[in-house]
Amino acid sequence: MTAPDLDRIRPMANAVRALSMDAVEKAKSGHPGMPMGMADAAAVLWGKHIKFDPADPQWPDRDRFVLSAGHGSMLIYSILHLIGVEGVTMDELKNFRQFGSKTPGHPEFGHTPGVETTTGPLGQGISTAVGMALAERILNAHFGDALVDHHTWVIASDGDLQEGISQEAISLAGHLKLNRLIVLWDDNSISIDGSTELSDTVDHKTRFEAAGWDTLSVDGHDPAAVDAALTRAKASDRPVLIACRTTIGFGAPKKAGTAGSHGSPLGAEEIEGARKALGWEHGPFEVPENIYADWREMAVRSAADRKAWNERLAASNVRDAFMARMTGGVPKAAQEALKNHIAKLVAEKPKLATRAASGKVLEAIAADYPALIGGSADLTGSNLTKASSQAIIKSDDFSGGYIHYGVREHGMAAAMNGMSLHGGITPYGGTFLIFSDYCRPAIRLSALMNQSVIYVLTHDSIGLGEDGPTHQPVEHLSALRSIPGVETWRPCDALETAESWACALERTDGPAILALSRQGVPHLREDDGSQNLSARGAYVLREAEGGAPQVVLIATGTEVELAVQARDMLAEKGVKARVVSAPSLERFFKQDDAYRASILPDGVPCVAVEAAIRWGWDAIIGREGGFVGMTGFGASAPAEQLYAHFGITAERVVEEALKRV
Amino acid sequence: MTAPDLDRIRPMANAVRALSMDAVEKAKSGHPGMPMGMADAAAVLWGKHIKFDPADPQWPDRDRFVLSAGHGSMLIYSILHLIGVEGVTMDELKNFRQFGSKTPGHPEFGHTPGVETTTGPLGQGISTAVGMALAERILNAHFGDALVDHHTWVIASDGDLQEGISQEAISLAGHLKLNRLIVLWDDNSISIDGSTELSDTVDHKTRFEAAGWDTLSVDGHDPAAVDAALTRAKASDRPVLIACRTTIGFGAPKKAGTAGSHGSPLGAEEIEGARKALGWEHGPFEVPENIYADWREMAVRSAADRKAWNERLAASNVRDAFMARMTGGVPKAAQEALKNHIAKLVAEKPKLATRAASGKVLEAIAADYPALIGGSADLTGSNLTKASSQAIIKSDDFSGGYIHYGVREHGMAAAMNGMSLHGGITPYGGTFLIFSDYCRPAIRLSALMNQSVIYVLTHDSIGLGEDGPTHQPVEHLSALRSIPGVETWRPCDALETAESWACALERTDGPAILALSRQGVPHLREDDGSQNLSARGAYVLREAEGGAPQVVLIATGTEVELAVQARDMLAEKGVKARVVSAPSLERFFKQDDAYRASILPDGVPCVAVEAAIRWGWDAIIGREGGFVGMTGFGASAPAEQLYAHFGITAERVVEEALKRV
Repeated sequence: MTAPDLDRIRPMANAVRALSMDAVEKAKSGHPGMPMGMADAAAVLWGKHIKFDPADPQWPDRDRFVLSAGHGSMLIYSILHLIGVEGVTMDELKNFRQFGSKTPGHPEFGHTPGVETTTGPLGQGISTAVGMALAERILNAHFGDALVDHHTWVIASDGDLQEGISQEAISLAGHLKLNRLIVLWDDNSISIDGSTELSDTVDHKTRFEAAGWDTLSVDGHDPAAVDAALTRAKASDRPVLIACRTTIGFGAPKKAGTAGSHGSPLGAEEIEGARKALGWEHGPFEVPENIYADWREMAVRSAADRKAWNERLAASNVRDAFMARMTGGVPKAAQEALKNHIAKLVAEKPKLATRAASGKVLEAIAADYPALIGGSADLTGSNLTKASSQAIIKSDDFSGGYIHYGVREHGMAAAMNGMSLHGGITPYGGTFLIFSDYCRPAIRLSALMNQSVIYVLTHDSIGLGEDGPTHQPVEHLSALRSIPGVETWRPCDALETAESWACALERTDGPAILALSRQGVPHLREDDGSQNLSARGAYVLREAEGGAPQVVLIATGTEVELAVQARDMLAEKGVKARVVSAPSLERFFKQDDAYRASILPDGVPCVAVEAAIRWGWDAIIGREGGFVGMTGFGASAPAEQLYAHFGITAERVVEEALKRV
Repeated sequence: MTAPDLDRIRPMANAVRALSMDAVEKAKSGHPGMPMGMADAAAVLWGKHIKFDPADPQWPDRDRFVLSAGHGSMLIYSILHLIGVEGVTMDELKNFRQFGSKTPGHPEFGHTPGVETTTGPLGQGISTAVGMALAERILNAHFGDALVDHHTWVIASDGDLQEGISQEAISLAGHLKLNRLIVLWDDNSISIDGSTELSDTVDHKTRFEAAGWDTLSVDGHDPAAVDAALTRAKASDRPVLIACRTTIGFGAPKKAGTAGSHGSPLGAEEIEGARKALGWEHGPFEVPENIYADWREMAVRSAADRKAWNERLAASNVRDAFMARMTGGVPKAAQEALKNHIAKLVAEKPKLATRAASGKVLEAIAADYPALIGGSADLTGSNLTKASSQAIIKSDDFSGGYIHYGVREHGMAAAMNGMSLHGGITPYGGTFLIFSDYCRPAIRLSALMNQSVIYVLTHDSIGLGEDGPTHQPVEHLSALRSIPGVETWRPCDALETAESWACALERTDGPAILALSRQGVPHLREDDGSQNLSARGAYVLREAEGGAPQVVLIATGTEVELAVQARDMLAEKGVKARVVSAPSLERFFKQDDAYRASILPDGVPCVAVEAAIRWGWDAIIGREGGFVGMTGFGASAPAEQLYAHFGITAERVVEEALKRV
């Protein structure tokens, strides 16, 4: 950076400071301290380093910027405004934290152009960024430097680094040598409770080095030092942490350097003092034209990059493939392969655990689905998530299709969010259903951001047997169904498993949970598989024989077999029972009343069967419905004994049905 | 350790190996590799270092041992058997992983004498152990070296160290310089997917050093080296990590050193080969008397320690206080203080946020409740979890009552489990309700282990306002209620908050969640507070006027006020509505049918009001019941606007009620 450029940075940064404190003050709520502290470093980063053309915030080869410290949202809103991103107007800044604005309290993906991911829950941003940086390397391996060659930048706080998920993320990034990932740590020694020394004495630089990162330290208020560090970081062969020593609330006469500037408005007096201290002689929400000009002039350098990239794309022999990848969707060949696979299942009627059935779906489609990037949190052989065509993604070869995430469920989920957000990748990852609890905050973000991430969660009930209650999900299906936007699938046989995968892959607006069994299930479907019956969430698997049903037995997953057995036992007693298979309650709730009534007719009593707790099921079966399932934690024993002990049997289903007819 | 002692270690360890592989083989399921790999180190630890008298596994000043790598459960079962802990018989070992045995697949607290905590979900053991080691220092500060002076030992796996929670735990332990905590890391370089190099290249020793730990490395198969390391570790002024280089499945001719020995039976041939290689000439489940004698002779050394401790206790002037602490229960003075506080609330009828009301409860009781150890994950001023009498617990002074946990929700929850398990401490800890997702695996363990840990979770709905959907819980109440054994409390005013605290503190068999508001609520109760009405989960707050109710309005927390308003509006329309306040649905479900019917009379329609999703509520109000709440994620805006936007208003309650009368 030249000396004249450096001189322009501080006033540019002061614009960010002024807008941040003004917006928080007007909203009477927010976090001024972080944007004021990191404004200098951010001005250098955005002014001189980030490849981002305000004219096209969606340009595929742009650098990704993640404000992991999402509470400092005014930092990114101010910058997006100053560089002229369409829609991020001064009025929007004035509407900070107000209903319907483009400037919500924390950055939200989809609300604000230029916001690459939703942040706020600490640790998520940096971990999502690992997925973005990984996606960049994968697509680079697939399409080459001419089309994919960008960085992922993160601003992270002390809180981000204290969250456990950050360790999972940095160890994965270090392992894979994701050198396009550069994290600026806002090393301000202040957390909400006061000095970070109250609770943290970790030497974070050494910790990152232990995970395979390069580290640098700079004075975050020295533009030349920051510029030099960013330049050095871009040349590293590893991910880089830059510790930026900063003063939180920089400029505020009394509150700078204290927790008092962190999470509430500075107040009129302090703001006036800050204006003086910073030499900012403009009114609230006023930015002089020369400052705008500096920001925009610096930002415009990426326009040339974008133009050159567009020319390379036009000339590329992989142009169509690249554009198709970035657009997303299931490739035709994979659709065809899945169709053939389903035809084969219908012909062969295999008895399989649904986790094995899932493995066979992947085996059928993976080779024709390069966007599909799989993995597991160290349970590959149990989750059966790896297709034989998928090579392992390694630090020296990103051309494969499978990631060994290690025992890092939360990091895996966040990385999948990042890959999905980056574009060009449809990520799926495996662990046990019980460990959905470990990655729940990231699953929630998949849903909140409408990302089509697929969670392959096996060993889905007491049916896993001897590992015992620590490994037996009983409340997890209910808890996952409770997250808005999540679709949970619990298929009953190999065919439903293939259909569930089809629904998950075709979904464009949210995540899917596939809850899959350890134990085998018979082929239950009697139709020809030409129609995806699972797609409506629930359907009649076996109609009552000899007339209208007297009772409906509704079940999911491995318990559908019990419902079918119970129906036959009831028939022997002259009771007409319908069996409804319900692979996805969420999908079923989305159907119209007429469809739902056609499956669960008004006035016909229901008995539900699921090897899990009842919580939530009353919405389907009513309080008067019967339920055969769990009422508490499981136990360690062979699966058959557990089913018998907990009374999840066809006999119990019959009993509950007879009580109601 | 003397040379003859060392010579005895290998055969002692081989007994563990043989029992482990035999038990896994007989169960046709389990993990032989880890016990076989760590048997030598464990034999040195248990034979020569651990202070544990098999004659009294509950002795308060015993060392705590945590098998964080819980899948290797046969290691601890074998040792408890060999040292003669009552109940851990050879028959129990033969019943490994069978229904009702004392030897479940993973160690379960409460099932097996000598098992200090339930492990299996990776990372939980080491993090729970931090709580135990912290409890030891706190009680030491309260009662002195004569009564409290013991170590916490952990055997941890690669997987434990990969989980993010381990970072939260080790940074907390390092920060507090918990030098009574010693972790033996089973550094075998093998995870389920294969070599740890597939996914992990972290230099874990450096990582621990960065967190303030001492570290050592030893050959885990060299008893003298292990002995020396354990001796050195006990002398450290910091927590210590000992990297034990081991061979997984040590002794197995083909599978040793491979993932093949990790998680499944070795098979007859491999077991025969291992017997030969180890020189173990005894049949399955056979241990020669001289090996038993060696184990028991080494174990008996702690009997003298226990005898001396009992003598010190008898002579101690704090004997009664110590015994009372270890017995648990709410101190009389604190009960009295709470009673007085409630009387004051009834008199003053304050309008308070329930988080503030919670703070006032703590303020009232903390000084009289030394077992109560509070804290927050860096949200002290928001959670209002600190009473003025509580000094901060620091590395050089553990006599205080409050812990700055840092931004480490998961580590906090696990540490609270550890403190509760240790005994003598009633832990509570605060964060936002939304971040219950971050500590859910540990909350589940609180419930599974019946530990009375109290979670103070504030900012419990869209009522937090501007922070937006990343911080607004909508599904969390439902998801927490779904965990078996958890009791969730969502009080409607200051009085109910005090009652909820009373219920949480008096509970002896499981955790409590206090879901508390950011925003103020009026005093709603009209009774004299002499009876804890909340204790039955739900009760009639306002009876219908002028006759039997035509509709029941049931609400929780901040929405009870809306129900009260709606009742009055309905009264103006001539509709008789009863208001039921339901601070704890779980508690209400535990009441008998008669009580429940007295609150929610059969045939009277219900409308529920809760600023959260409906999922689960149908169990209370039926599918036909009305529900005023959320149907998806929230948004960033001032709270009043959000309530209006999402239609959570008295008017909507009236509408839903009118539809049904």
